[in-house]
Amino acid sequence: MSAEVRVRELASEIADVDHEAAKQARDRHDSLTKPIGSLGRLEELGIHLAAIMGACPPPRLDAPGVIVAAGDHGVVGQGVSPWPQEVTAAMVAGFCDGRAAVNAIARVVGARVTVLDVGVASEVPPHPRLRRAKVRAGTDDLTRGAAMSRGEAASAVLAGAGLADELIAADVDLLVTGEMGIGNTTSAACLIAAFTGSGAQEVTGRGTGIDDATWEVKVKVVEAALDHHQPDAGDPLAVLAAVGGLEHAALVGLILAGAASRVPIVLDGVSTNAAALVARALAPRATDYLIAGHHSVEPGAAIALQSLGLEPLLDLSMRLGEGTGGLLAVPLVRAAAAALREMATFGEAGIG
Amino acid sequence: MSAEVRVRELASEIADVDHEAAKQARDRHDSLTKPIGSLGRLEELGIHLAAIMGACPPPRLDAPGVIVAAGDHGVVGQGVSPWPQEVTAAMVAGFCDGRAAVNAIARVVGARVTVLDVGVASEVPPHPRLRRAKVRAGTDDLTRGAAMSRGEAASAVLAGAGLADELIAADVDLLVTGEMGIGNTTSAACLIAAFTGSGAQEVTGRGTGIDDATWEVKVKVVEAALDHHQPDAGDPLAVLAAVGGLEHAALVGLILAGAASRVPIVLDGVSTNAAALVARALAPRATDYLIAGHHSVEPGAAIALQSLGLEPLLDLSMRLGEGTGGLLAVPLVRAAAAALREMATFGEAGIG
Repeated sequence: MSAEVRVRELASEIADVDHEAAKQARDRHDSLTKPIGSLGRLEELGIHLAAIMGACPPPRLDAPGVIVAAGDHGVVGQGVSPWPQEVTAAMVAGFCDGRAAVNAIARVVGARVTVLDVGVASEVPPHPRLRRAKVRAGTDDLTRGAAMSRGEAASAVLAGAGLADELIAADVDLLVTGEMGIGNTTSAACLIAAFTGSGAQEVTGRGTGIDDATWEVKVKVVEAALDHHQPDAGDPLAVLAAVGGLEHAALVGLILAGAASRVPIVLDGVSTNAAALVARALAPRATDYLIAGHHSVEPGAAIALQSLGLEPLLDLSMRLGEGTGGLLAVPLVRAAAAALREMATFGEAGIG
Repeated sequence: MSAEVRVRELASEIADVDHEAAKQARDRHDSLTKPIGSLGRLEELGIHLAAIMGACPPPRLDAPGVIVAAGDHGVVGQGVSPWPQEVTAAMVAGFCDGRAAVNAIARVVGARVTVLDVGVASEVPPHPRLRRAKVRAGTDDLTRGAAMSRGEAASAVLAGAGLADELIAADVDLLVTGEMGIGNTTSAACLIAAFTGSGAQEVTGRGTGIDDATWEVKVKVVEAALDHHQPDAGDPLAVLAAVGGLEHAALVGLILAGAASRVPIVLDGVSTNAAALVARALAPRATDYLIAGHHSVEPGAAIALQSLGLEPLLDLSMRLGEGTGGLLAVPLVRAAAAALREMATFGEAGIG
């Protein structure tokens, strides 16, 4: 079976969320020992978790896991980033060593970190925390042609889905999306423009912190890519192949596989938001399994989240990626489930 | 020595935060393996922690503890709350049983819960999680006279300080403020008005969720109290005695003792924000040891935090109290410290 057919099958496996469990959670919240509605967005989040997992109260979420999908980008040749491509591999080595931001934050929130090399340009040494599923050694320059072939895009989606399935089989019950790839905010901007109809100026941000001149180059690159490819949002794999990154594709697979297994998925920043738009185009129901972890300062992030109808839990002016903002939201998600599971009702407490 | 003299001594023990450690933390952040500034508010928070604890990187924050100070309020006789006074004791029993919102969230973030009966109207049965330091069985009606005497206010401050010292001696390294007391948002509104000069309509909120008619009663009660007492912000113990609650007083003590020991203190909602204003009036340096955990929907909370110059970390439309919003910010605080301690520098990672 071709990779593309398997991606379509995976997309078709996503069921509706459980509206009956959501209703039970809403009713249960109104019986718990607190003023009605006083836990605010934590109550909405608990109701959402019940809908996703199909149970009220939702099961414990004791085993969160972040997947950091990594890939390189041919577009860096256009001068969109001050960082050389080698930094992607160096950061992947850092994730394996456990000394990057994602590791420090994952330890605080009790999440396991798994790194996925789906497209790093150079060879990355083996490591227990690393899964090697390189589809190709980085994308081609998306301003000159397709970033990758349609089959490669589908294969990268399946690599992400396969790793998500592996983690779910190992009892990971909450998935966090993370990524690393020098140049990938350019690719994310193209994806967001393609799926929301926004202009290059609106969706293009400063990534790692580029200056005005580099930002202007980046906007022109995004414009040129959109102009060259004329992406058709009705054919999401074609868009992904034309302007996406291998790590974006892997995150699409993570989202589809998580949703198919009724595992909540916490989004991080702009690249993961872009992947969510692709996942929705492939499987509209996938959106219902997503939680927006934080509001990245990248302008495309807000545009993507608004299009997805997701309100981020945190707004800490972060723009690092790796999954850091998604991980910081994990305790909020766990607390939302814990409130529904562990709080006494007024009846049990003998009040009212 | 009188309680009031001991409160003044405690206030005088608070030292300046460590500006040199803050500078070291700022420099260190710019050397870590991430784009400069990309962790946003988490970087500022790490720098703040270094200043509070006087060390860069700041020590690990592995033992957070929340103190839930509880007291009753004579002003409930004025019809400011739909809940009877007995609910305070019932909720205290729930905190001891471990089935309230604060317990569920504390388990998620790894915090210990200690309950302080500093003024519950009825007797509360002993429990390992409960400290009994009742100064009096609830306050008097603040519209008719002082809520308590000046000596009682000072004693309640010392009760909170004593419990904070006990926890710090038991290695708690991050303090979270929590409270319970039917009627205490009325008292908090009076305190916030007294220390910020805001009007009763601005600072009075809907507490547990009162209707328009009850809200109007509550505004009139706050107006009447301010009119009757004409509180002088220059004499904070007098203000606390006139319109405060015993739990507010205890939280003032927690803040002063935490600051004196260089332990970061995370504020929760409006009652804890009100206590912070009292603490600042007693010891201006105390403010520098405070972290605003969340933005409560109570209008007085935003007014108090703005006056304190604190920007809340979370905004989840919560209004429960107990310490719940403060606890949810604990992983962010721990992550801020962990990033400074555990991340590699570019030099160590061989990048750049």
